[in-house]
Amino acid sequence: MSEQFHIVPEAEHEALVAAVYRKREFTDEEARDAARFCSFASTHGVRTHNAIKALHLDELFGSGAGGCVPGAGIEVVENRFAASEVWNCNRKLGQSVAYAAIERCIELADQYGIGQVSVDNAFHYLWGGGYVLDAAKRGYIAYTNCTASLAEVVPFMGKHPTLGTNPHSWSFPTAEAIGFPIVIDWATSVVAMGRVQQLKREGGELPANAAVDAEGKFTTDPERAAYLVPFGAHKGYGMALINEIIAAFIGGSLPTLRSREIPEGEKYTSSFYFQVIHPDALSGGCFACGRNQTENLKAVIEDIKGHGNETIFLPGQDFAQAAQQTASAGGLLFSKAEIAEFNHLAAEAGHPEWNPAKLPLFS
Amino acid sequence: MSEQFHIVPEAEHEALVAAVYRKREFTDEEARDAARFCSFASTHGVRTHNAIKALHLDELFGSGAGGCVPGAGIEVVENRFAASEVWNCNRKLGQSVAYAAIERCIELADQYGIGQVSVDNAFHYLWGGGYVLDAAKRGYIAYTNCTASLAEVVPFMGKHPTLGTNPHSWSFPTAEAIGFPIVIDWATSVVAMGRVQQLKREGGELPANAAVDAEGKFTTDPERAAYLVPFGAHKGYGMALINEIIAAFIGGSLPTLRSREIPEGEKYTSSFYFQVIHPDALSGGCFACGRNQTENLKAVIEDIKGHGNETIFLPGQDFAQAAQQTASAGGLLFSKAEIAEFNHLAAEAGHPEWNPAKLPLFS
Repeated sequence: MSEQFHIVPEAEHEALVAAVYRKREFTDEEARDAARFCSFASTHGVRTHNAIKALHLDELFGSGAGGCVPGAGIEVVENRFAASEVWNCNRKLGQSVAYAAIERCIELADQYGIGQVSVDNAFHYLWGGGYVLDAAKRGYIAYTNCTASLAEVVPFMGKHPTLGTNPHSWSFPTAEAIGFPIVIDWATSVVAMGRVQQLKREGGELPANAAVDAEGKFTTDPERAAYLVPFGAHKGYGMALINEIIAAFIGGSLPTLRSREIPEGEKYTSSFYFQVIHPDALSGGCFACGRNQTENLKAVIEDIKGHGNETIFLPGQDFAQAAQQTASAGGLLFSKAEIAEFNHLAAEAGHPEWNPAKLPLFS
Repeated sequence: MSEQFHIVPEAEHEALVAAVYRKREFTDEEARDAARFCSFASTHGVRTHNAIKALHLDELFGSGAGGCVPGAGIEVVENRFAASEVWNCNRKLGQSVAYAAIERCIELADQYGIGQVSVDNAFHYLWGGGYVLDAAKRGYIAYTNCTASLAEVVPFMGKHPTLGTNPHSWSFPTAEAIGFPIVIDWATSVVAMGRVQQLKREGGELPANAAVDAEGKFTTDPERAAYLVPFGAHKGYGMALINEIIAAFIGGSLPTLRSREIPEGEKYTSSFYFQVIHPDALSGGCFACGRNQTENLKAVIEDIKGHGNETIFLPGQDFAQAAQQTASAGGLLFSKAEIAEFNHLAAEAGHPEWNPAKLPLFS
């Protein structure tokens, strides 16, 4: 890292973040969930979805704007399916909902081998990869998708943005086999809108086929870029569509109304989908060369990384490396600019325990 | 179509295909499954995985080479999970296994909302999209993936092919809402190896970033193209990896050994994964503007296809259009070259009922 970073002990970070959430009238439990999730993101080097982003989103679209309702309850919708639940989460804090949903999926997977929880009336859960990574660290295969807050993505061969950046996140319990869980976790757009804005500020160029102008023509000029484009042409478009269709089955309404002013009777909320699989429920028990399941995973992944591919990247490796760095630093790493944001948040919450002068520098 | 096509009545097609499978010592049931699946593929315009391809694969890698065992039984591996089954299919015909697995998943989804069947010791099921499309026509959300027969794909940033073309197939029961099921169904390589060979014969150029030469450098020259590349850089690579990891949990061994000569104690078989979800198990029951679930799906898809996007393609639309053409023709459509292949197959099976002279031309 060329930039200088401060080390914030996890407990101090969580105390500050929770204080801000409590100040905004979230319950103690919600504040703890939110703080825990922000720590988890920062531990794994996820700077785009840390506490600052979470609290900024909450201000703009969440409790500050009616999109998220502090203290809202989760209603389990009655159905006849033993391994499936559907929740109306009444715009409760996304982090609390997602933690609870993954927990319930794990219970269902323990019993049925696979379990799913679908969530209607959701508010942003920030980083889907975090919940599935957490489940994979506990030994489960986990998957989530959601409909992103805004329709910013133009369908393949289309002109107008009618899809969200709709991410998919999978994680696999491979820590015992290779040292860390594999995490496959990305938006279905080539880049995020934040990247376009960053390049606009810095005067850079977008990659080809990442964005279109207001007429729907491809552009690499961030000044002309109006909308985003799915990755991998029709293939990424299909993957973005999956989230919209699953959301439509759950209870989500028109993507172009999401997070916007809506006519009477319409809905503007996102939807979440969670699924957990117990790895024993996949095992045929018959692995080559007398291996067990873990040894087999290790052998397969080593084969993929072998034969001259020794330096390839495995998805999730970046999160694992960041977590190692966090551990060796003895705390979460934040830039000077981020510490300044925390100072504002401490003032907002009236949290005198926050003392930036005491934070050591990371070297 | 500029090429001239013959119309083959479905019953005649199935009788011929089944006769060839029976001749190759498959059971009546296997022969019927294989024939039914080939008809289904041709009905939906899938020329790359029709009867000719199926029987050719069977000859090269299947019953002609020990990769597939006619009459093999399916063993259900005992486990403690009510909504999950794992099958050892003992290299039974892939089409019979896949039909049975989707059927079992549907029963599980009817009871648990979601069900999964994992298959060890599999032989090629041809076209994953066909099984999920079939399930979606019956009202279910279905998903399958498999490990492709050969490791032909180089991991992102790698040099050596250690991944299969590993397809994913999803289908959604949207026929009532929009007239046909949405089918998202593709290999995780940019193109198939068959496409490289075709361009080599025809002297064409590959798209950029679709293939690499023997040194791992990108090439658009089909003569230099040695290996394939995942679509969408690290994102498609992650999706190809998913199939290998799930297969490793099930019982699949090293991807570079698949369908090849193996050391004692090793395994060279593919793995299948199937999952079915009952759409009622996703429904929160609270749709905007008093819509029901089907009306909501229709509204969401119309919103995506609206606002200037009226001419965009919905995945699955191509299969639906081909099925309409098949229906209006009153039979399956095959080119002159394909009819010639069928003549050879009829001779192989000793099936005198096949009479190409009687087949009408499609105009």
